[in-house]
Amino acid sequence: MSKVQYYTASSLDGFIATKEHSLDWLLQFGEGAETDYESFNPDVGAIAMGSHTYEWVAKHLAESGAPWPYAQPAWIFSTRELTPVDGADIRFVQGEVEPIYQDMLAAADKKNIWIVGGGELVGKFHDAGLLDELFVQITPVTLGSGCPVLPRTITSPPLRLLNVKQFGKIFVELHYEVPRRAR
Amino acid sequence: MSKVQYYTASSLDGFIATKEHSLDWLLQFGEGAETDYESFNPDVGAIAMGSHTYEWVAKHLAESGAPWPYAQPAWIFSTRELTPVDGADIRFVQGEVEPIYQDMLAAADKKNIWIVGGGELVGKFHDAGLLDELFVQITPVTLGSGCPVLPRTITSPPLRLLNVKQFGKIFVELHYEVPRRAR
Repeated sequence: MSKVQYYTASSLDGFIATKEHSLDWLLQFGEGAETDYESFNPDVGAIAMGSHTYEWVAKHLAESGAPWPYAQPAWIFSTRELTPVDGADIRFVQGEVEPIYQDMLAAADKKNIWIVGGGELVGKFHDAGLLDELFVQITPVTLGSGCPVLPRTITSPPLRLLNVKQFGKIFVELHYEVPRRAR
Repeated sequence: MSKVQYYTASSLDGFIATKEHSLDWLLQFGEGAETDYESFNPDVGAIAMGSHTYEWVAKHLAESGAPWPYAQPAWIFSTRELTPVDGADIRFVQGEVEPIYQDMLAAADKKNIWIVGGGELVGKFHDAGLLDELFVQITPVTLGSGCPVLPRTITSPPLRLLNVKQFGKIFVELHYEVPRRAR
């Protein structure tokens, strides 16, 4: 069965980007820094991201000349008009999460749905009772402020810790199950 | 040599208490929840805490009837007038961290100095180049808002991951060394 998964790096103090949407603090460890992305990604059948995340990726690709990195169909949630990246299998959407989730589910064909970010989009999936798992790579920095990893209160029931992985002296990945509310 | 250590529980999203300074989200796991506090505490020779942390402890003790839990001398940083807890070895201080740190260092007698919290007090020790290590027990909840674990930017050089410990299906303790700036 398809799961909705949030796979992201976060600072120790819970931010996935600076206020200016910078990831320099993360990229200092190298884009090839050891993680389990190579084993996570093949089970993903559809991708969602918010407008800021998309714009960061688009800008980063434009600067580096690299191609769109996702083979899966991607849904970009935005109320603004955004420029498509050449060669990317993307559709721009807005509005309620549930009907878009149904489209993603069909496209994913039993594989998982990856919410790349940001935190607010993940929060909207959670609000709709649709968020299943978190994979958070805790990065050895504090940002003090920035874009929150998941701006929601999930305390009772709490998350369920499924697994912990350490990658070298850099990342610690915490894998949690999100208690799904009855829908 | 004495180290200045911050040992704290934090939500996954980087808060050590709610905006209302509540720890109910943490206490749901039981005050006897497995951690390494019993091995951490004997090496502590002096304690520091901010006013909100102190007030939370004092209120919690008053409600439970329990005695002051710290055998070590404690420095309470506050610009407000606070009521002493009966039987507690405490002194109320304010102002620059450095001279107070020297008093704590002498009292600690080569043992470590534990900054209990909050994040802003830990930040002040870091600003003074005096913070050595973090022990953060990541708790399986998100709070969405609250009192930040460490409201400072520490990115370059980053923290150094020293150790990772998992406690049951609840806490994951991340142990970091803070790069000390030249003083």
